[in-house]
Amino acid sequence: MASAKTVYIGIIGAGGVGKCFINQLAQLAVRRPAPKLVLCYIATSKKSLYHADYKPIDIASSVHELTTASVGAPPALPELVKYLSSVPAGAKSILIDNTSSQDVAESYPLFLRKGVSVITANKKAFSDSYQLWQDIFSAAAESGAKVYHESSCGAGLPVISTINELVATGDEVTRIEGVFSGTMSFLFNSFAPTEGSGGKWSAEVKKAKELGYTEPDPRDDLNGLDVARKLTILARLAGLKVESPTSFPVESLIPKELESVASGDEFLEKLPEFDAQMEEVKTTAEKEGKVVRFVGSIDVPAGKVKVGLEKFDRSHPIAALKGSDNIISFYTKRYGSNPLIIQGAGAGGEVTAMGVTGDLLKVLSQI
Amino acid sequence: MASAKTVYIGIIGAGGVGKCFINQLAQLAVRRPAPKLVLCYIATSKKSLYHADYKPIDIASSVHELTTASVGAPPALPELVKYLSSVPAGAKSILIDNTSSQDVAESYPLFLRKGVSVITANKKAFSDSYQLWQDIFSAAAESGAKVYHESSCGAGLPVISTINELVATGDEVTRIEGVFSGTMSFLFNSFAPTEGSGGKWSAEVKKAKELGYTEPDPRDDLNGLDVARKLTILARLAGLKVESPTSFPVESLIPKELESVASGDEFLEKLPEFDAQMEEVKTTAEKEGKVVRFVGSIDVPAGKVKVGLEKFDRSHPIAALKGSDNIISFYTKRYGSNPLIIQGAGAGGEVTAMGVTGDLLKVLSQI
Repeated sequence: MASAKTVYIGIIGAGGVGKCFINQLAQLAVRRPAPKLVLCYIATSKKSLYHADYKPIDIASSVHELTTASVGAPPALPELVKYLSSVPAGAKSILIDNTSSQDVAESYPLFLRKGVSVITANKKAFSDSYQLWQDIFSAAAESGAKVYHESSCGAGLPVISTINELVATGDEVTRIEGVFSGTMSFLFNSFAPTEGSGGKWSAEVKKAKELGYTEPDPRDDLNGLDVARKLTILARLAGLKVESPTSFPVESLIPKELESVASGDEFLEKLPEFDAQMEEVKTTAEKEGKVVRFVGSIDVPAGKVKVGLEKFDRSHPIAALKGSDNIISFYTKRYGSNPLIIQGAGAGGEVTAMGVTGDLLKVLSQI
Repeated sequence: MASAKTVYIGIIGAGGVGKCFINQLAQLAVRRPAPKLVLCYIATSKKSLYHADYKPIDIASSVHELTTASVGAPPALPELVKYLSSVPAGAKSILIDNTSSQDVAESYPLFLRKGVSVITANKKAFSDSYQLWQDIFSAAAESGAKVYHESSCGAGLPVISTINELVATGDEVTRIEGVFSGTMSFLFNSFAPTEGSGGKWSAEVKKAKELGYTEPDPRDDLNGLDVARKLTILARLAGLKVESPTSFPVESLIPKELESVASGDEFLEKLPEFDAQMEEVKTTAEKEGKVVRFVGSIDVPAGKVKVGLEKFDRSHPIAALKGSDNIISFYTKRYGSNPLIIQGAGAGGEVTAMGVTGDLLKVLSQI
């Protein structure tokens, strides 16, 4: 195989996941001498660091340099496409997107069409319009550039690779269900534990926020959109043409009256007024010997996707989940009545970055 | 990338897994036009079908032709190495081993050294002497040929790919534990269920045999060697130099007195005399509110591997397993206290063949 001897890497994003990834990349570059990995571009939304002659940026100190040196704003995305697709002859290039930027996501087809492979933890590109999804994969098919996005669902857990392999080897995925949000997992494992009675809903939300398990405004978790995005990705990989993450039923846990309050703090302050609603949900489940969980499910033959509360027997793996773990069950023709289950931490900088690093290894073995 | 335009495939084994794989391969060849897949060799231990000029064998009818046509015995393995490594210029070749043959396993270094990639469901090569393990991977590293063996542990479950990715991305695997045998899973889920009291040990073994969950002689499952082989593979991938599957403690469930009885039938006939021993094991666990399971575990920092009976809380995922499912938990530095868990059918023709087909897709994307 005439593999690329040098691979140029451009990274966008130097936040929680971005920093962990750069550490992993620095270690990888030491462990694996071939192909030679050259970091030629690193940027946040405000700053960028790169050299017109592709002079290597020291990986280990790149974030420090980016944040402390006097460097310019990032170039427009089409300029970056040009830069990364004009690397020295014989070399290849990869864009790594560790942001959650819609703009960056929408530019993937430009990169891919020019032969720049894309690896990303950004859910947006794969859960937005179906048109963007098609543009991304047709651009990759045309140029032969690779696109990998393991961390767009379940962080570093082998979720995307597993569904892709099930489909590619000819299995039929009939149903996917699970807990796809670390925040929702933590909330319901505390609010409606399999043993004991759990706390009040508003108190659990407050605690989760204090422990850093929610977004700054907890409504960004409770609206269910994050889960809907992940379901959109899996449903599409299973063969369904899901138009967008708002084109199927998504149950929001934000009381209507609190949808428009000004801040997350005000939301948390007023949430106790609505505890009775969630308490009733919990009690109804308890009367059936069950517990309530916030889950997503995809019924492939029926073409149905939904996100919301459901009741589970206490012995069900979804009920027995711990901490902020995710669990994803794939029911397929070959696996029959017992699903293939993948479980573990579905959020966190190191494990999300690991999904990106794993994708990088796959791309390196193919270009 | 200068990919191979044609890939020649040689298959050894046309039993349960082999037949399922050939069906999957036939469908794959239709779905994916490139690279062109040419089946040029198929053999059992008794018969072989191939043409000196590499004329394609029709995949879908190959097993039928092999079993009905008047064809010769397979060539000696060094001859097969020569045949598969002499495919037309520009093409690549892959050996697919769907047997459990020790001889075939021992010949992998010969194939790999000559640039023939190896894909296999055969545990033997990776769980035999550490010398063979080293020979296999050094031969592959030398020539650039690929070696994949997903189905050597947990059938098509993404077990091998997951541990390889954890290690390759720089995570530290600290502990692996689980139920690695479908037979043992079925036996203990029936003998010591989390709810109810279960049957007598000898009756459960008999039932498992009648349902086809055991080898013809159930002692081949009960001696623990199958589990020990899988643990050997995982321990080595985690970085331990395990000499062989008999170089660590493996608990056999065959009563000493029945080790040398002549047949599996005689074994089953006399097994009830030893029911009291297993009943005591079950009762002891029950007194602690636990259930007993046959598990394997690897403590990486301590360098310890063991296989045998252990007690688990009824709410533990290992206790809650269903049917003949496998469960494998990876404890790592990045995943912290909650492991990454993979669960599902770990045996069966279709899912084992799927692991082989998945490996084939990986190799095709790289050669």
